[in-house]
Amino acid sequence: MQLNIAVLAGDGIGPEVTNEAIKVLNAVAARFGHDFTYSHALLGACAIDKYNEPLPQDTLNTCLAADAVLLGAVGHPKYDNNPDAPVRPEQGLLAIRKALNLFANIRPITIYNKLIPHSPLKADRIAGVDISIYRELTGGIYFGQKSLSEDKTVASDLCSYSVQEIEQIAHMAFKAAQNRRKKVTLVDKANVLETSRLWRRVVTQISGEYPDVALDFLFVDNAAMQLILNPKQFDVMLTENMFGDILSDEASVIGGSIGLAASASVGDKYSLFEPIHGSYPAATGKGIANPVASILSAALLLEHFGLYTEGAAIKEAVTTSIEQDYCTTDINPDSTYSTSDVGSYIERLV
Amino acid sequence: MQLNIAVLAGDGIGPEVTNEAIKVLNAVAARFGHDFTYSHALLGACAIDKYNEPLPQDTLNTCLAADAVLLGAVGHPKYDNNPDAPVRPEQGLLAIRKALNLFANIRPITIYNKLIPHSPLKADRIAGVDISIYRELTGGIYFGQKSLSEDKTVASDLCSYSVQEIEQIAHMAFKAAQNRRKKVTLVDKANVLETSRLWRRVVTQISGEYPDVALDFLFVDNAAMQLILNPKQFDVMLTENMFGDILSDEASVIGGSIGLAASASVGDKYSLFEPIHGSYPAATGKGIANPVASILSAALLLEHFGLYTEGAAIKEAVTTSIEQDYCTTDINPDSTYSTSDVGSYIERLV
Ligand SMILES: CC(C)[C@H](C(=O)O)[C@@H](O)C(=O)O
Ligand SMILES: CC(C)[C@H](C(=O)O)[C@@H](O)C(=O)O
Repeated sequence: MQLNIAVLAGDGIGPEVTNEAIKVLNAVAARFGHDFTYSHALLGACAIDKYNEPLPQDTLNTCLAADAVLLGAVGHPKYDNNPDAPVRPEQGLLAIRKALNLFANIRPITIYNKLIPHSPLKADRIAGVDISIYRELTGGIYFGQKSLSEDKTVASDLCSYSVQEIEQIAHMAFKAAQNRRKKVTLVDKANVLETSRLWRRVVTQISGEYPDVALDFLFVDNAAMQLILNPKQFDVMLTENMFGDILSDEASVIGGSIGLAASASVGDKYSLFEPIHGSYPAATGKGIANPVASILSAALLLEHFGLYTEGAAIKEAVTTSIEQDYCTTDINPDSTYSTSDVGSYIERLV
Repeated sequence: MQLNIAVLAGDGIGPEVTNEAIKVLNAVAARFGHDFTYSHALLGACAIDKYNEPLPQDTLNTCLAADAVLLGAVGHPKYDNNPDAPVRPEQGLLAIRKALNLFANIRPITIYNKLIPHSPLKADRIAGVDISIYRELTGGIYFGQKSLSEDKTVASDLCSYSVQEIEQIAHMAFKAAQNRRKKVTLVDKANVLETSRLWRRVVTQISGEYPDVALDFLFVDNAAMQLILNPKQFDVMLTENMFGDILSDEASVIGGSIGLAASASVGDKYSLFEPIHGSYPAATGKGIANPVASILSAALLLEHFGLYTEGAAIKEAVTTSIEQDYCTTDINPDSTYSTSDVGSYIERLV
């Protein structure tokens, strides 16, 4: 298969980990006889530094022309505590999600047996956890109207959802559940929010089309507890943008390291694959970042194009590297393996 | 001291646990020579059932005339999945918070050594945790304008904050930190939300008045991870209404049972004390609900009025009951002690 992949390595550790993912993709191409090409472009703080905008038109064009996007990480601390910064790296991330209509962010949460001792949670709670989180990614309070009064004394953000926005991701979540353990949990705050009540109504209606899938509901505050108390109860979790941001990050740490968590953002036409972790400024350039989340994002990319054997080969190689303790220091503090050591090890295994 | 306490026992297990708190308060009054009187009134589903409104005027008048409010729990499942219900029990809770201007919800998170084996988190992560969460309670998306388009295809909720709303709780949080470990962590989503950027600006300004207190910032998704990974890093956490709802519930389970977590909601004039747990419909009337969160809420009430010795007496009695394994089944599944057994035990100890 021929795939032209737009690579937005981004900021901080983004370039380092993405580099390893590309090494692994090239190994897959060689072994399985595919032809992967890469078009690199800037997104985030690096794009602001060069073009004064977080998502330059060139970058967007590169993505629109590609078959898929592989993203590293976006963000730089120099923007975080400056409320007056006219542009921020994260705007680039939000803009590309919107421009490519990537309305569903899918985050698989699984546990490597070898890493159970590393989890902050006790073994009996987490062994066997297998969750797929469907987070709405192009709506809600992230994209609603923002305002700051002229005298800067009142600020606001609007959270808004339409039936159509809810429907499109809900169908995806139910279809995913049909191939899994046949349960969808809608997480909302329907006892307070009008948007949540719309979610509940629309998702309940849609569930009628999937009689083989059970639907249940959980308030977001309760979901934040249940993810720790009993994560095994979840199969597919479906939720809106902000709740999904919080809950999927919370869920990602029960696996032992956020450095392992990958995600796929998909729409009707385009798709983008990125680690859950951020740009991790403190680790930048030190060669200590864990490349596994980026490598697993590449596996999700291949699976998205039906290359299941290839995706499985990457996942198996990652599992072997973890079982062999061939890991960065976030997993094993005594490890001497660098980002590229781990990437090369996995590259050789696929 | 004379205290007239408005008692809103509410729904579900609310009346059962509140009853135990009153037993304990009466024991304190007898031992320390105080005069506590109680005015009971309806709030939530029970008020809807009787008066068709979740916060009847009579109830509000009772609270306005009282020195403090002791609340049980509010909510009934018959309203949760009915998006068209014209009134909902939770509206009563929100309305009373607003009417009494209870802008700060304070949730202490501590760990009983005896219960460390019960926590879903590993012992090394949680031993010694001592967090005080300051959640803004009368603003944000909870109280912003809600809308549903006439054809019911688009819903929205507005999140709005003013400088003044942020200032009043921020001062409280910094003052609390001065009497603790001198650290405030502001949790927000300043990389996305305009309201968060206002929070960051105002809280940063105010921090100048508290040079002995260190201020740091955390994005809400990261905070949801850090609470599990390393909760010991937190002293005072300060955040807006919705983030506080999610994070304080998440934090409450690391202690071993949500049945232990109490909260104080305070404003410039009025104050209200309630367990973090909800109405727990499945347990209603079975005598299995844990009364400790309600009893500890009563202790917070006494401390609010300067009765520190009395508050400490209750907390010590609770600690003893836990150390003696005199607990409900949420703590010890093999226990045969009922809600009122535990309440009576603590009552005898104070
Ligand atoms: C960087 C930030 C804007 C982003 C988000 O909140 O969506 C990130 O946390 C994520 O989850 O991808
Ligand atoms: C019942 C609900 C409206 C309420 C809230 O979200 O504030 C509850 O979860 C709480 O935290 O007190």
